[in-house]
Amino acid sequence: MSSKPEKITPRSEDYPKWYQDVIREADLAEPAKVVKGCMVIKPYGFAIWEKIQRGLDSRFKDTGHENAYFPLLVPQSFITKEAEHVEGFAPELAVVTHAGGEKLEEPYVIRPTSETIIGHFFGKWISSHRDLPMLINQWANVMRWELRTRMFLRTTEFLWQEGHTAHATHEESEEEVRKMLGVYSEFAEGTMAMPVVRGIKTETEKFAGAVQSLCIEAMMQDGKALQAGTSHDLGQNFGKAFDVKFQSESGDLEYVWQTSWGVSTRLVGGLIMTHSDDEGLVLPPALAPIHAVVIPIYKNDEQKVAVMEASERLKKQLCAIDIAPEGVRYRDFIEVRIDDRDMRPGAKFYHWERRGVPMRIELGPKDLDKGQVCVKMRTGGTGKKEFLDAGAFVEGVKARLDAYQAELLAAAHQRVADRTVTLDTWDDFVKTFKDDASTFAWCHWDGTSETEAAIKAETKVTIRCIPLPGQGPDAEPGVCIKSGKPSTQRVLMAKSY
Amino acid sequence: MSSKPEKITPRSEDYPKWYQDVIREADLAEPAKVVKGCMVIKPYGFAIWEKIQRGLDSRFKDTGHENAYFPLLVPQSFITKEAEHVEGFAPELAVVTHAGGEKLEEPYVIRPTSETIIGHFFGKWISSHRDLPMLINQWANVMRWELRTRMFLRTTEFLWQEGHTAHATHEESEEEVRKMLGVYSEFAEGTMAMPVVRGIKTETEKFAGAVQSLCIEAMMQDGKALQAGTSHDLGQNFGKAFDVKFQSESGDLEYVWQTSWGVSTRLVGGLIMTHSDDEGLVLPPALAPIHAVVIPIYKNDEQKVAVMEASERLKKQLCAIDIAPEGVRYRDFIEVRIDDRDMRPGAKFYHWERRGVPMRIELGPKDLDKGQVCVKMRTGGTGKKEFLDAGAFVEGVKARLDAYQAELLAAAHQRVADRTVTLDTWDDFVKTFKDDASTFAWCHWDGTSETEAAIKAETKVTIRCIPLPGQGPDAEPGVCIKSGKPSTQRVLMAKSY
Repeated sequence: MSSKPEKITPRSEDYPKWYQDVIREADLAEPAKVVKGCMVIKPYGFAIWEKIQRGLDSRFKDTGHENAYFPLLVPQSFITKEAEHVEGFAPELAVVTHAGGEKLEEPYVIRPTSETIIGHFFGKWISSHRDLPMLINQWANVMRWELRTRMFLRTTEFLWQEGHTAHATHEESEEEVRKMLGVYSEFAEGTMAMPVVRGIKTETEKFAGAVQSLCIEAMMQDGKALQAGTSHDLGQNFGKAFDVKFQSESGDLEYVWQTSWGVSTRLVGGLIMTHSDDEGLVLPPALAPIHAVVIPIYKNDEQKVAVMEASERLKKQLCAIDIAPEGVRYRDFIEVRIDDRDMRPGAKFYHWERRGVPMRIELGPKDLDKGQVCVKMRTGGTGKKEFLDAGAFVEGVKARLDAYQAELLAAAHQRVADRTVTLDTWDDFVKTFKDDASTFAWCHWDGTSETEAAIKAETKVTIRCIPLPGQGPDAEPGVCIKSGKPSTQRVLMAKSY
Repeated sequence: MSSKPEKITPRSEDYPKWYQDVIREADLAEPAKVVKGCMVIKPYGFAIWEKIQRGLDSRFKDTGHENAYFPLLVPQSFITKEAEHVEGFAPELAVVTHAGGEKLEEPYVIRPTSETIIGHFFGKWISSHRDLPMLINQWANVMRWELRTRMFLRTTEFLWQEGHTAHATHEESEEEVRKMLGVYSEFAEGTMAMPVVRGIKTETEKFAGAVQSLCIEAMMQDGKALQAGTSHDLGQNFGKAFDVKFQSESGDLEYVWQTSWGVSTRLVGGLIMTHSDDEGLVLPPALAPIHAVVIPIYKNDEQKVAVMEASERLKKQLCAIDIAPEGVRYRDFIEVRIDDRDMRPGAKFYHWERRGVPMRIELGPKDLDKGQVCVKMRTGGTGKKEFLDAGAFVEGVKARLDAYQAELLAAAHQRVADRTVTLDTWDDFVKTFKDDASTFAWCHWDGTSETEAAIKAETKVTIRCIPLPGQGPDAEPGVCIKSGKPSTQRVLMAKSY
């Protein structure tokens, strides 16, 4: 697009504004405006989502899941069949009342999530233990009419995947819930370079209709938490609501045990807020739509011919390199752009920096003479110009990208470590979360919804999760930071998106 | 699912019933029933659609297009901005009138197609000739409230891709329209093994809002035509409706020239009706979710151990073979299932035959002794048991699948050739299209909508397209089959889905 670059507000000045500026300047998305709370995901932003999809889809299939597609519209009556579910979702529904020029007898809602409609079909498809487990995933758009929206993080329509599975025993469904949380956290850390805490949601924060919700929580650079993925143990709640029964091996009729789990385009928001800086977007190579940009430098036509030829040669060499991890179902060739626009090199540097392209390669007549390339990584310890033998650079480019990916993860881990605290007094708590401040705080809690609500009302802080073993401080008896009542372990508290 | 196999009605007895039976018995999809006119695409059917998506997406990217995502909901007023467009789509709209518990000030419609909402954003993004061409594609669900629906072929909600592009000149946009029609027809023939006729839609049949619509038309086994893909020259119609102007190189403000093009889950219906037979689904290897099923044959536990071990070994060898065409962005490993269920082998043969798996491999103790495999292709000239050296079979499996793919295409071409006629008298025409009969008929037509309407009213036959050069009989003067008025070339007539 031909719009001029605008300033990116520094994080220290106005963090929410910084976030919007990064999205605009990297050309990832824009608010739709004409459709309330919706966004348009522009090509560069969508390319990141496609890479997220590809990586997750490959893992879902490797864990035995199959994709399917269920209707966008759900009969309104379906939503009311599970009591907690309707309470949670009713206020956010978009309703289709007319179609084909007529008023509908029963309105449809646009799916806010698909437990109900999929539950209905599970009821038709499952009759014997031989039909189980049923392991289904759906990539789809969903709609929740939210009042306050923010690009990628919370939009009325968003894209996601929703896994829905049915099992013969609670033991099996619980294992599935944990397995998929594991897939999410490995993807978050291994591919997005985004550290996460795995834990259990409180009764207040769990999914409407679940017995228990597991989650991964990531820390953004402002210290707030982002719920990045959830995996729900639905128990037999939807099985009973939709009469999904099977004949067990012993011949009894039993309700199935179900799970659901999902991540959404919100992950793109998490990615942005994990790595980016005041210069714009920063992307891990595993999700970067473009890995390298070549900036040809020349002063006359003769130089131009030689430099462009060398640039094309380099591009061809790089683009033949498949950097996909072993065993996945996709190829991931290095993507290269040659920026030969009629502009000052400095303006080009700036352009691609804002878009978070991991490597910039300058190529001029001197470099050609010396058989070298001038490489600059977007950020990190190697973020200065390096002059490298061209052949050696190509030879080592995969290792270079791997190292950059590892560096981003290490930096993110460091940020989380630096901003994670253990708090023991309410005074410290209030001070820590004063005004708009946030951090990850491990605190004792008495386990009641009343205390949880009181903490939220006073400080806007919520319990992000009760950590799974190894994900937080070791369990130790203590007293609740708010009520002073006994507690058996610390939980993760933070403000959140 | 544990439901018992049911009979597949022979094509000769009841073709529409046969189509439904094949879909049910191959477990591809089922009518949603609780959501009017919608279907659930089940895992095996969705896997075919995923392979279609993957193949097309790779080609779209190779021709310079980028994916993006626009809102599902479109302000109702947008639809009315292009006069022909609203006339075409208004009767089929699903309308959201309430959301978040309140009545909306302006209702939204669920996109029936996205020319309007994308036109709006093109207007925001395009200001200079430097922004052109803009080459966008979207994979999405759309909704058209149809009265008569049929799985895959016409459902109220369907999945598709819609390309939307903007160009500086009509010449360029016309080239894009033709290029994408070429991508579709190459995909149809090369990957789906489905022959198509490329042509131009009449004024009556063109897309609502287009200057001209190009299409590919495929012949189904009942002689009816399936419009399998369309590519539209939108001229400046939407540019004017949404005020999409750019400053040309000479400094003038001009409206952009736009195109749109799409194919949908309807292609799965076309695939089914091109190849399948009275035994069930037949699939070309390029789109088969499973390429081979291994049926282990044994009589005792000792044999079972040896046969299962050999089956696993064979599976591992086959699954390591990537049969993706050169230069594409995806891997396409041979997919193998070992069917070791506790059932008679005959029931297993029947099971996989109905699902159109291209190769069946039987492995028993005798085969192990001889180092051989017993292979049977699903259909065609090689459709009998072959006993092959196991090593040679693995060595030659890619060539075998290529040959099977070519055989399916040749058989489909033959069927089209056998059922394509040239008609010159109205008597012959009426006889040819009597009752429910159809075929591809090349006939002269006087070029008027009145005659077109009269033909349709009397026989249900429509003009499928005016062929592009080389796609039908050479242009030759003649007289219209209905009106007797002069005509310059024959056009393709058929009943259609």
